Formats: sequence, C-alpha cells, structure tokens
Amino acid sequence: MGKMEPGERNSISDVAGVTVGHVTINKGGVQTGVTAILPHQGNIFQDKLVAATHILNGFGKTVGTIQINELGTIETPIILTNTLSVGTATEGLIDYMIEQNSEIGATTGTVNPVVGECNDMKLNDIRGRHIQTKHVKEAIQQASADFDEGAVGAGRGMVCYSLKGGIGSASRKIPLHHGLYTLGVLTLTNFGQLEDLTINNRLLGRELTEKMNTVPNEKDQGSVIVILATDLPVSERQLKRIIQRSVIGLAKTGAQIANGSGDIMIGFSTATKIPHQPNGRLLTIPTIHEEEIDLAFRAASEATEEAVLSSLISVSHDEAYKKQSSEVMTLLQCLTKFDVRLS
Amino acid sequence: MGKMEPGERNSISDVAGVTVGHVTINKGGVQTGVTAILPHQGNIFQDKLVAATHILNGFGKTVGTIQINELGTIETPIILTNTLSVGTATEGLIDYMIEQNSEIGATTGTVNPVVGECNDMKLNDIRGRHIQTKHVKEAIQQASADFDEGAVGAGRGMVCYSLKGGIGSASRKIPLHHGLYTLGVLTLTNFGQLEDLTINNRLLGRELTEKMNTVPNEKDQGSVIVILATDLPVSERQLKRIIQRSVIGLAKTGAQIANGSGDIMIGFSTATKIPHQPNGRLLTIPTIHEEEIDLAFRAASEATEEAVLSSLISVSHDEAYKKQSSEVMTLLQCLTKFDVRLS
Amino acid sequence: MGKMEPGERNSISDVAGVTVGHVTINKGGVQTGVTAILPHQGNIFQDKLVAATHILNGFGKTVGTIQINELGTIETPIILTNTLSVGTATEGLIDYMIEQNSEIGATTGTVNPVVGECNDMKLNDIRGRHIQTKHVKEAIQQASADFDEGAVGAGRGMVCYSLKGGIGSASRKIPLHHGLYTLGVLTLTNFGQLEDLTINNRLLGRELTEKMNTVPNEKDQGSVIVILATDLPVSERQLKRIIQRSVIGLAKTGAQIANGSGDIMIGFSTATKIPHQPNGRLLTIPTIHEEEIDLAFRAASEATEEAVLSSLISVSHDEAYKKQSSEVMTLLQCLTKFDVRLS
Amino acid sequence: MGKMEPGERNSISDVAGVTVGHVTINKGGVQTGVTAILPHQGNIFQDKLVAATHILNGFGKTVGTIQINELGTIETPIILTNTLSVGTATEGLIDYMIEQNSEIGATTGTVNPVVGECNDMKLNDIRGRHIQTKHVKEAIQQASADFDEGAVGAGRGMVCYSLKGGIGSASRKIPLHHGLYTLGVLTLTNFGQLEDLTINNRLLGRELTEKMNTVPNEKDQGSVIVILATDLPVSERQLKRIIQRSVIGLAKTGAQIANGSGDIMIGFSTATKIPHQPNGRLLTIPTIHEEEIDLAFRAASEATEEAVLSSLISVSHDEAYKKQSSEVMTLLQCLTKFDVRLS
Repeated sequence: MGKMEPGERNSISDVAGVTVGHVTINKGGVQTGVTAILPHQGNIFQDKLVAATHILNGFGKTVGTIQINELGTIETPIILTNTLSVGTATEGLIDYMIEQNSEIGATTGTVNPVVGECNDMKLNDIRGRHIQTKHVKEAIQQASADFDEGAVGAGRGMVCYSLKGGIGSASRKIPLHHGLYTLGVLTLTNFGQLEDLTINNRLLGRELTEKMNTVPNEKDQGSVIVILATDLPVSERQLKRIIQRSVIGLAKTGAQIANGSGDIMIGFSTATKIPHQPNGRLLTIPTIHEEEIDLAFRAASEATEEAVLSSLISVSHDEAYKKQSSEVMTLLQCLTKFDVRLS
Repeated sequence: MGKMEPGERNSISDVAGVTVGHVTINKGGVQTGVTAILPHQGNIFQDKLVAATHILNGFGKTVGTIQINELGTIETPIILTNTLSVGTATEGLIDYMIEQNSEIGATTGTVNPVVGECNDMKLNDIRGRHIQTKHVKEAIQQASADFDEGAVGAGRGMVCYSLKGGIGSASRKIPLHHGLYTLGVLTLTNFGQLEDLTINNRLLGRELTEKMNTVPNEKDQGSVIVILATDLPVSERQLKRIIQRSVIGLAKTGAQIANGSGDIMIGFSTATKIPHQPNGRLLTIPTIHEEEIDLAFRAASEATEEAVLSSLISVSHDEAYKKQSSEVMTLLQCLTKFDVRLS
Repeated sequence: MGKMEPGERNSISDVAGVTVGHVTINKGGVQTGVTAILPHQGNIFQDKLVAATHILNGFGKTVGTIQINELGTIETPIILTNTLSVGTATEGLIDYMIEQNSEIGATTGTVNPVVGECNDMKLNDIRGRHIQTKHVKEAIQQASADFDEGAVGAGRGMVCYSLKGGIGSASRKIPLHHGLYTLGVLTLTNFGQLEDLTINNRLLGRELTEKMNTVPNEKDQGSVIVILATDLPVSERQLKRIIQRSVIGLAKTGAQIANGSGDIMIGFSTATKIPHQPNGRLLTIPTIHEEEIDLAFRAASEATEEAVLSSLISVSHDEAYKKQSSEVMTLLQCLTKFDVRLS
Repeated sequence: MGKMEPGERNSISDVAGVTVGHVTINKGGVQTGVTAILPHQGNIFQDKLVAATHILNGFGKTVGTIQINELGTIETPIILTNTLSVGTATEGLIDYMIEQNSEIGATTGTVNPVVGECNDMKLNDIRGRHIQTKHVKEAIQQASADFDEGAVGAGRGMVCYSLKGGIGSASRKIPLHHGLYTLGVLTLTNFGQLEDLTINNRLLGRELTEKMNTVPNEKDQGSVIVILATDLPVSERQLKRIIQRSVIGLAKTGAQIANGSGDIMIGFSTATKIPHQPNGRLLTIPTIHEEEIDLAFRAASEATEEAVLSSLISVSHDEAYKKQSSEVMTLLQCLTKFDVRLS
C-alpha cells in the first residue's frame, strides 16, 4: 500500500521508544477498554516531547489539546477509551502521573492529561461506565513494542465502515540526507459507512453492499483518533503540518469526515527531549528544513491509510471476535460470507 | 467602574435563566470546591445554546472546548473546579447528564461535558483529590440566581494578585434600537502578582507592596476562567469576538497573561435555543448587525474587570476567610493592615 | 463520479446568481490571465454574503481571508490570477469597487478585496508581470453563467499532475426536507505529480508514467484554489465545515497537499444577504440544523473531485492548447500518445 | 512607563539590524505615505527569519499572514501604508523583491510580500490612491536605525484617540541567564476615542473631553498595526505567544478593540537565520525554555504601550503638523489648548 517502505513491525512502535498497552473488557454486553500509548520509556513529565494536535472535525471530547497547542509539548502518555469514560480515564491518568511525580501539585504546578475517545455505544453498554481509573495504570503497565491490533483495548467496541473496527497501526521509513527516520501511526477507528470503504483504490464497500440484501449503512456518527509518532527532528509547527496529512490517508479508505465524527490527530516527535525545568542555557532544537518535509507528509498519509485498514483486518481482532456472536461482522467474515477476495 | 450601567444584581445571573451553585470544601488543608453555571433552567441537552470559547493562554486543562468550537453550541452546565479534579468533575458531569437524558449513549450519541479549572495548590491539598463526582450534582442542585462570591465553590482555594481570589461576577446592560440586553460575567480568579494590581486606574498593588517589608510576589502561575452569558442575539462568531474583549478588562486589573496562566473564556447566548434534533424546517437565528457589536465589546470588558475585582473584595469571601488562619490575605485585610483606603 | 446528482450545468454557476469571467493572455511565453467569480448579480458591497475560508496549506499569497474570517462575510467578487500579480489584481479590484461604490473611503470605511493565486511560472513569464489592473474589470464584465474551463483566465498557465491544469468546475444537488439546494465548486488547479493522478479510483497516473521513458515528475510546488458556492442556508461556521470537506475530493484525485502547495478554500452562501448598514432591526439568518449537513459535506467532496478532473479534461482547454507548442501535455494528448482509454 | 528598562534608542531599531524608512506625502488633502521595516540588513529572501502573526481583530486587509503562519518565517521587508493602497504596495514590494532576487519566479518559486495597513480617510484623500509602487522601494532605501515617529510615512494621515496618531516605537531589554536581549515594537496607530485615552493609568482622555464644549468622539473605525522585533531566540510558537501580549499594552492606553479596528500583530526574531535552500544538514534552532518567557511577555506589553503613546507625542510628528491646518489636533496641541500638564 503506497510507495514508501514500512518499518520493521509496520507499527507505531517502529519509532524507537514508543510502546502501546491495552486493557480489554469483554463481558457480554460490555465490550470496551483502554489503550495507552507511551511516547518514550523515560519519565515523560520530566522529559517532554515536541507535540502537536489537529482537529479535523471537532465533534469529539478529546482532553488535553489546549495545552499541547499552547506549549508545543506532551507530558503524559496518551490514553484512548470510550466517550463516556473520558472523565474516568483523565482521572486515572492523573492518578498515575502524580504517583510517578511527587512534585506535581506540590512544588511544580499540575499536569496536562491527554485522553482521546470514540463512541462505542453500538457494541458496548457505554452508559454502564465500565472503565475504572485503575484500567489506565494497567494499560500503561502492559505497554510493549509488540501489541495487538483490532478489537482490543479502546478498540474493543468500535465499528468502522459498518464492520468491526478498533486499533490499527502502520509505519513508514523516511530516508533523508542526514539520516533514516521513521514515522508511525496508530488509529482508533470508529467511522464510515460500508458503501464508501475503499482498499487500494478498489471500491470494496460498494461491491459488498451490492451483494447484500439489506443495506447495513446507518448514519455515520463515528470518529477516528490518529496518533502519530516520529523520530524526525521537527518543530511543533512542522509536526502539525505532518499530522494534518493523515486526512489524505483517511480519504483514501473512503472517509467522508461526517458531521458526527470526532476526528482528532495528536502527534509527537521523539527527536528532542524538552526538560521540565530550565537549566539556565538555551535549548537547541534540531529540525529539518521545510523543503525536506514532503516525504514525511506522504509517510503520514500512507501510514494512516494502512493503519485504518489494519484495524479492519487484524488477525487478533478477528480471533477475539469469532468467539462471540455480534451484529457487526469483521471484514474477513464479510469477505468470506459474500465470497469476495481482497486481491 | 466603567461607563456602562450594571444589571440589577451586577451579576451573571442578571441574564435571565442563568444560575450558579457552589459546593465548598473547607477542612483544614483542604480548601477547594466546585462551581456550576447553568445556562438556562430547561434541559440544556435538548435545547442547546449558541456558544463560543477563546483560548487567551492555553496553559490549562479545560475540557469541552473542541466541540463547542466545531458545533457552536453548549449542551451541559459549565463546571469549575481545581486542576487535578478536572477528570472527576467531568465524570460527575457525565453522571448528571446521562441521568437527566436517558437517550444519551442509547439512542442519540454522547454528550460534551464542559469543565474549567484553576490550580489551587497554594491553599489546597490538590494532590489529595478531595473533589468527588457527587459534588458536581450537588453544585448543580444548589444553583440559584443569588449566589455567593469570593472564597466559595471552585474559588475556595484560589489566589489572585497574591491575595485571596475566587469567584466574582458583574454585569452590564446593552441598550440597542431593538431592545435592552444584558451581558454578565463570572470569573474564577487565580492569577497575577500583587505589584500589578490596578483598581480603577490606581496602581494599588504598587502602593501596597511599597508598604510591605517582604515582597509577596512569586512566579505567576495562576489562571483565570471567564464565563460570559448574554441574552443578546448573536452568532457563535459574534460571541467569540465578544468574549475575546474580556482581555481588556483583565488588563485593566493588571493582568500580564503570564506563561503559566491558563486563561480561558467560554461564552453563551440565551437568545436562541437550538433543538437537539432537527424538525424538518430551517432554523432561524436572530443576530445583531455587526455594526451594533461595540457596546457588547465594552460590556464584556467592563464586566470582566469588575468581576475580577469583585472576586477580591467579596464580603462572603472575607467572612468565610476570617474564620481561619491563612498565609494569603484578602484585599480588605491587606488594606486594613497597611491603612490604605480604596477611594 | 460520486453518488450525488450534478446540477444542470455541472458548474458553480448552477448556484443561481453566480457567474464567472475570464481574461486570457496568450502571447508566446506569456500565458496567464485573470478569472473573476461574482457571488451574485447585485451590488455585493451593499448586500454581502455569508462567507468562510479554510487554509488547507498556507504556502500561498491569497488576499482577503483575515476579514472574511472575522466578519463572516464577503463583499467583493473573487479574483484569481498568478502569484506575482496578486498585488496588481488587488489594486484592480479596489479600482472596480470604489468605482461602483462612491461611499467607500468617503463615508463608509474601506473594502476587503479577495484575490487568490497560483504560480504559473512553468508555462508563463511570471516575472514579466503581464497582468494589468484593467484586466480585473474586464474579467468581471465578461462574467457569465456560461464560461470556459481549462487553459483560460487565471488557469491559462497552470500545470496539474504534470499535465495541463487550469479552471474546472462541477456541482451537486442537495435534496433536504425543506428544499432542493445546489452546491458548486470552481477550482484553479496547479498541483500534483503525474504518478499520483487518480480518476474514479483508477491510478491512471501510474499507468501513464509506466509507459513513459522519462519520468515527468518534478518537485510538487503547485497550489490549488477551491471556490465553493451554495444556496444552502448556512452560518459561516457551517460553511467553513463544508469547504473543509473539499480536501476529500482533492485526495481522491491523488493530491498530497505538498509543502509548496498553497491550498486555499473560499466559500460563500447566496441564501441570505447581509446589508452593509444596520437598519435598527435584528437580522434573521436561516440555517440548516447541524444534523442535516452531511449531504453538503459529500457534495463539497464530490464537486471538488470532479472540478479538478474537469480542469484536466476540458475541451475548451484542449482547443486553446493544441494551437501552440508546449512542454506540458493535456490529459487527452497524453492518453492519445500512450494509447490509454479513460473508460 | 512600566518596570523594564528601554533600549538605547527606545525604538524597534534597538534590535540590531532592524531599520525603518518612510516616504511621506504631504500635499494639501493628500496626507499619506509608506513605511518600510527591514528585519535585517542582508538578503532576507535568502536568509529568512522566524516570524509569527496574530490577528487580534480581523477587520483589516493585511497581506502575507497566511504564509507566515504556515512556514513560520518572513522573507521580505514589512511595508505599511493606507488601506486602499495595499494592492499597490504589494505590487511595489514584489517589484523590489524580484529585482533583488533573480531566481524568484524563475528557478525557485515566488515570494510572500507582507503589507499592513490602516485607513487614513479622515485626513487623506484615500480614494485618490496617491501611493505609487515606487514609494515602496524609496521607503526601503530610506531605512535607517534612526527614523522619525509621528505623522510620517504610513502614519502621515492616521488618527488615534481622536488626536493625531501615526508611527510610534519603543523597546525593552530582557535580561536572562544566558544573555541580554532586546525587544522592540513599532506601531501604526489609527484607533480609539479620546474619552478612553489613558496615559500611565491617568484617564487623560476623560479630563480633556470634560474641558471641551464639543465631544470629538465619533465611531471608532480605526486600526492598529503592531510590528514586534526581538533578538531573543524563540520558536515561531513562542513568538506568537509574545506578540499576543501586545494587547495588554494597547489596553493600558485605553484601547477597546472596536469592531471596525483591524488590529494585527506581526513579529520576527533576528536570532536565527533560516536559509532559503536546505543544505543537507539539520537546522539547529536555539530557543529559550518556556519558563523564561514571562519577561518577554512583559516587554511586549510595555513596549507596545509606550509605542502607542510615542505615536501621539512624537516631536517630529508635531513639527510636521504645525505647518498645516488640520481638524485633528496633536496631543501636545490639545494639552496646551486646555491647559493640562502631562506630569
């Protein structure tokens, strides 16, 4: 998919130091969870990273973007969960941060928790509020460079293109004169109507809907969260430009950015650590020249496109799902049922 | 103060339908609370109001601005509390909303909670996380057009200009050809250094610091939340322009908009209710002509200036405080101690 | 192309009152021009329209967006030309406006000219500055509901996907409960690399480049201007949301939103006229309910996609071009040369 | 004025390398001009500077902000003139830039001209369009570290607080651990009503209007342009934060940011030159730590406040004006006439 080469795992964790952890809740009508993305393996409150956000469509409840935009840095892991648990997850993330950093709220001000969400009410008893604050810490502790995709963590109850969505990830290598860099994307997918689904420029969704007797499309009320990591040395302004290009990847899968879709991008660069406290010297921020940015743009687009499709096709996703009955098919179930081959 | 006439109560509740409630926690080192602002007395999820936000300085953790910006409406009460309780308050507000609206998360999507905050760690054990989700509902139930100002609710532990800050409110009447309108402001004040305090163009802060042996000024790490209500018929774009003018009022009190200050404005207009569901007809939004907006600009500036000073001078504030020892004086205590008269 | 029905002309002029005029300069190495879009046929300074802009990528020199954003209205025709003539075109537009409105700069303040541009230096002697102020007035006077597309007006020297670009237009009908509305798009296309060109989900560009001995792709330094008109009753906020969806249409043609591409959207709604002066009464702005906006989103995407392709395929474009030698082929020339059929 | 120490000249040219030049047109009813600010003395197209803009109130026609925002750099001198000459000045600036840089529009893309404006129609025949393209080049050639303030250049016909406004400048020193830096501001003042004029917290405007038989206040339709220069090493994000603080300085002089006022801030840092072309290596951008920014905030506020007042009080201003009759008094004329002393 696309023209650029993926990283070793074809995952956001190809960016050195980035890990992902899930807590998945799978109990009958309760199908939800928490996903944690750790931008690096040190103390991120003490060593912040350059970060940026982009609101593609603001029908969403993501927490923490105001301060990222103002200061250009991120200082906590990123937590993903369902929409009505965003408060609980924020609380859980604050629990974790003040436990890790005794000076928060004592000698050094507070902390800016970052929590994204999608609405999993089609498959999950979202009103039941089954996420607890402890799940945040557990997801963080589970974090690993190897992590499952599909119907896991925050992706457990998500629906994408009327099929089973969830967590997907992909990466691209960025070869520049001064080094070989990596850009990775993790998506939480919960948007789209089957009819629009496009894979590698094939209108697969239209093919599938034509074979169905009933049209599964309802109003598109979903959302997508795009987390982008890179080791490319960039300013927060450059990073914002890069994450904005994920819309190209979304569009290539058929996304319409519908009214009800909270489409939020959050990006960070691991290239430079910004210390919490000044040390009396100037910071020195290495950045690429603007004329070198086009490959990163394309990498963001391609990795986003592939991450969305990975969320639909993931094996772990499918295995998790085939054990239970569900009104929502996975893509592979759908292809099998209607005897359509992907390639 | 200023040239325009205040409303009857000189309070945000001069805007018909707006009420304010507090839960105050006053137990030794625990000095914090919750304040709820109800934009109208009906079901605000069903009958939303035109709303806008402005990030004057984004070193803050306010929740809910993304969706207000995208959709131009507010659909919950506004909750204020301390910074590390923003997750808990969000959770509490979601509790309240889904209790009031059985269709949320069942038949109609989710809800966008709006929660603002300032950091009260100088006077409050903020790490102790003493706010509970139930306090949100209690504050909402306490809401009244008559409400206390000063060291109450979310303002309990706030420090402003090195003095006791907290909740303040003021209002202004806006006479236009087609009607007499009201604009009210409520501020949660937690910013500034004494030396900068200015009242009615008098550099009172400088006078006071010159009389002190020790200079009380530390680094300015505070914040201010400005809630603006009006019955003026305005679009969300016009409302955003109006709330931006509150910076003039802040500046006249001596504000420097310091790096560490999360300065956030949230405004709503009660003039038009936007139904949650479409009814098959076009909406009709009455708005003022742009050339009529200057009086609203000045009203926003004057009401903000007076609301900040009201948060410093409030009697209820002082009464609440004189019962306990504190390192932070109220303005009246300070004036008395150094024998300075306000006018 | 797409699922929605086009308007009668499949053009921006399907929105009643919208007309387009060109001045084309075709003299050897001078290949440039001016295109004027008139939002309605009355005096637009006296009767402004709701308007919005979106900066998809700000490597561009478009004039006039600041005031559109602040006031939510447009008060002049929109002029398009080459990048280094943006000053001259602005001057020409001011000439026209003060000639039409004797009170501008005399009794009523000034006027906000709106001028977009792309860089036509590959085919045009852009340093020669061949646009004159009078061309603006001529383009306005030429304006008609029937207008040429392709290598005309501002599109004369544009290059898109390494082929001949220029002016393209398309429209879509929007059937809602309360009426049948129209949304039209005009694009000035000057971006992209051939390899990325995609038509109806077919990677035509890749097919073509594989047949070529030399790869025509250079660095993507182009731009695209998207002008969107509609008679849908919308607020400026809603309109901004709608024009943002044109990125979906661009992406479907293969756009990468490269660093050097100034990608600017400007939209207006003809549904309501906003008078220059207040009349002592409230304005009444009819708008759709937000839940009705998805069709307009899709219309913006589809019309943009088709407008870009129309700029590549236009017959008038091809006829204008076949009379001269040029290093840049039109799409039809390219298809013929490499014996590829479009469908 | 304020607490911080001014630079040697108390002028924007205290920032090493910054110069300012004027062309003033003073012929009866034609009272207008051009002011050029040169950010450094080299070739700014080849060696760009970090830059940022802030739209405080967008009722204005400033050209060039879109690209500054996207790329974070400035690549031309800044030109100021009257509103209806913004096209001509843009054209003149392009003339100058392509003359200085033979590759523009030939081998390297185009150039982003930056032109600000205020409406001088009260004192100038603005409809007459008396600015010519050549005036831009002349103003650039006149540029010097020593330059006049008051009724000169673009400031010639401006009116501020119902008195004679125009060009004003001031500066402040910023002592940090790693060095002593300078921040300078130049304002083009054309806003405000006399009644609001405040000098050093004294409501001078009210005093003056009380002594007048006729009230000179009309509708506030003016504007202010704030140009901020510094040698402080900052990112474009930090610079944007700094220039936003100029609103505090404006407010302290009595500004209301009225509807009709185009209030635009443009800032640049001379600390780092960004080369036009990449050289195969990473850029290294030195920046202050965010916790060191508060002094720069205060410097921006104080220098803006003093620059506005300097535009009112300038001696050169007064000398230029006393030779002609005018309906608009200078501040010094007004103080003399009503026998009021400044201190």
